[in-house]
Amino acid sequence: MREVYIVGIGQTPVGEHWDRPLRELGSEAACAAIADAKAECPQALFVGNMLSGSLCSQENLGTLIADFAGFKGIEAVKIEAACASGGAAVRAAYLAVASGAHDLVVALGVEKMTDLPIDIATTALASAADADYEAAHGITFTALNALMMRLYIERYGVRKDDFATFIVNAHNHAKSNPNAMFRQSVTLEDYASSPMVAEPICILDSSPVADGAAAVVLCSAERARSLSDRPIRILGSSLATDTIGLGTRREPLSCEAIRRSAQLAFKQARVGPKDIDLLEMHDAFSIVSALSLEANGFVEAGHALPFALEGNIGIEGSLPCSTLGGLKARGHPVGASGAYQIVEAVQQLRGQAGKTQVKDCRVAMAQSVGGLASVIVTHILGN
Amino acid sequence: MREVYIVGIGQTPVGEHWDRPLRELGSEAACAAIADAKAECPQALFVGNMLSGSLCSQENLGTLIADFAGFKGIEAVKIEAACASGGAAVRAAYLAVASGAHDLVVALGVEKMTDLPIDIATTALASAADADYEAAHGITFTALNALMMRLYIERYGVRKDDFATFIVNAHNHAKSNPNAMFRQSVTLEDYASSPMVAEPICILDSSPVADGAAAVVLCSAERARSLSDRPIRILGSSLATDTIGLGTRREPLSCEAIRRSAQLAFKQARVGPKDIDLLEMHDAFSIVSALSLEANGFVEAGHALPFALEGNIGIEGSLPCSTLGGLKARGHPVGASGAYQIVEAVQQLRGQAGKTQVKDCRVAMAQSVGGLASVIVTHILGN
Repeated sequence: MREVYIVGIGQTPVGEHWDRPLRELGSEAACAAIADAKAECPQALFVGNMLSGSLCSQENLGTLIADFAGFKGIEAVKIEAACASGGAAVRAAYLAVASGAHDLVVALGVEKMTDLPIDIATTALASAADADYEAAHGITFTALNALMMRLYIERYGVRKDDFATFIVNAHNHAKSNPNAMFRQSVTLEDYASSPMVAEPICILDSSPVADGAAAVVLCSAERARSLSDRPIRILGSSLATDTIGLGTRREPLSCEAIRRSAQLAFKQARVGPKDIDLLEMHDAFSIVSALSLEANGFVEAGHALPFALEGNIGIEGSLPCSTLGGLKARGHPVGASGAYQIVEAVQQLRGQAGKTQVKDCRVAMAQSVGGLASVIVTHILGN
Repeated sequence: MREVYIVGIGQTPVGEHWDRPLRELGSEAACAAIADAKAECPQALFVGNMLSGSLCSQENLGTLIADFAGFKGIEAVKIEAACASGGAAVRAAYLAVASGAHDLVVALGVEKMTDLPIDIATTALASAADADYEAAHGITFTALNALMMRLYIERYGVRKDDFATFIVNAHNHAKSNPNAMFRQSVTLEDYASSPMVAEPICILDSSPVADGAAAVVLCSAERARSLSDRPIRILGSSLATDTIGLGTRREPLSCEAIRRSAQLAFKQARVGPKDIDLLEMHDAFSIVSALSLEANGFVEAGHALPFALEGNIGIEGSLPCSTLGGLKARGHPVGASGAYQIVEAVQQLRGQAGKTQVKDCRVAMAQSVGGLASVIVTHILGN
């Protein structure tokens, strides 16, 4: 396989973009990434998106955005892997360059979720679960995650309030990120009084439905040398799945697909958990943060909360997490979030992360989780 | 790039499968392809599908089908490129093997369109057009193709009834295909009296909405040698796009994306139109057949109808087309059709096409057209 580098990044602010259509958000991020790379028209565009058909009545999304961005005639497709679609688009772009089929491509994540009433978005999001055996019975994604959180609390005897540490951390890091949706602090008191959504998940455990787009330019080693004096190398890239339904897993809390995806990426990158300088994790719900730290091997099962409470996940900690706000505070436009994670990891590796810059940052990990941890994309990036 | 081979094919009959869910159709075809290859669990599954979100409330389709097929934990994603999704899934699988990331993968196309009333499927199909500037005004895909057909008839002064040759041909070829939806003959008289849908497109100009799934196993040269004594090689693979909307094209009838995709595939395969022994074309409407023959360079602009009328597209003709019924008579489960085309091309190259076997068939071309010829996938296969 050829080596693959990232030489350009672009993003729109995350928020409620009622005045801007899908094509405009997507092409703004894609063109910004191309401009950042000082590159010309890419040879291919891989669009990560989950809900354009259900919420915007628009498929053929690759063509739509290639057309609107002015990338005339190029290869363009949409990649769907539920909430991990953005990460999956980066992986598809990686494979296209690694194969030698293309030398310079764009991976884009884009989603528009706020134009319609929230119950329609909630129903659409449930299509990431098993439509026939889970969603058909009325269970939402929040309710499914609540089952996991309840089991976690009972299994390990932890305090529900201790999950607040992930939320406080994410909001702290979002404050100086101009693209983040929520730039205000959250306190332990705020968390304790946050209204319940699906017990034990409260509003502040949950990332917000949002609109946004993020893009990266991937290229071959040769193109990277000519385009950039500090290209970021993709050291590892992997995608793994689990059963789609929660009911068919032997051990719901072990998150086998996260474990497998991480192990594949670690092996390819020839690093281990101790070598990771920062983690952009899929903190869609605080329980997912805890389970991710464990299944990835950063801590043992049941030890994520003490690890976070001891300050390890802050910018000065041993494993800075959600360094520009994460899904929780930057916002979670589902099919775009995986691409935002890669953009943010590149910002850190380049030393462009502003007030939340991680010092001596050399190896970053970004992980996109789709469904109820049923599809996982992991990337490890390095200088 | 590594060489890539096809060593297994599988398909379900095309029809109205009201009793069988998406996961069952998809995994039947995928497992049949694996069994045909005498292979074990694949390393990745690329699922071509357009409408599972809109019509089945199911995204995360890669995970769903990998899970149900028993492909535990593997990489699995959905690829969407409108009606060309099946072809795009084969290309994604091709890139994954060509890159060296995987040695044995499955490309699957699956679609389920007949459970809901036809107007819902029609509306969903319009999401392949420009949702904001075309579909929002109520235009359907049939109406968009009718605009092309009307322009073609006026520009070249041809008779509408001469398009019947494509329909008669496709239905002739479907008669002996056990997986085809329509296995009855159609006469010139049937065509002349066929009810109008969107003038000048009549019912018999149109391929049917349908359910179905088709799959191919792709692998590296090394695996192909150990698995099969007659692997089929992918000689060329390409994907190209045009503007998504018809209104922004300088010359609607020239189908620039078909031309570009064909030229890329011809160049990679080191062949030209004269070397192609059979063409599985995207005959969703008879006008698309005519435009495909021209834009691919088999005939000059305006000459497709005489070419077809002279018997060239029959099994004994100079360019046998739609040899197992095509989209018209085998049926058109949109996101699956591109995969059916590849399966059928392999049947021909292996000499397993039954009564419509093309003699001395060495090089086959399959082309999947999405949207209004806005996204095109071309594959050239050889022995």
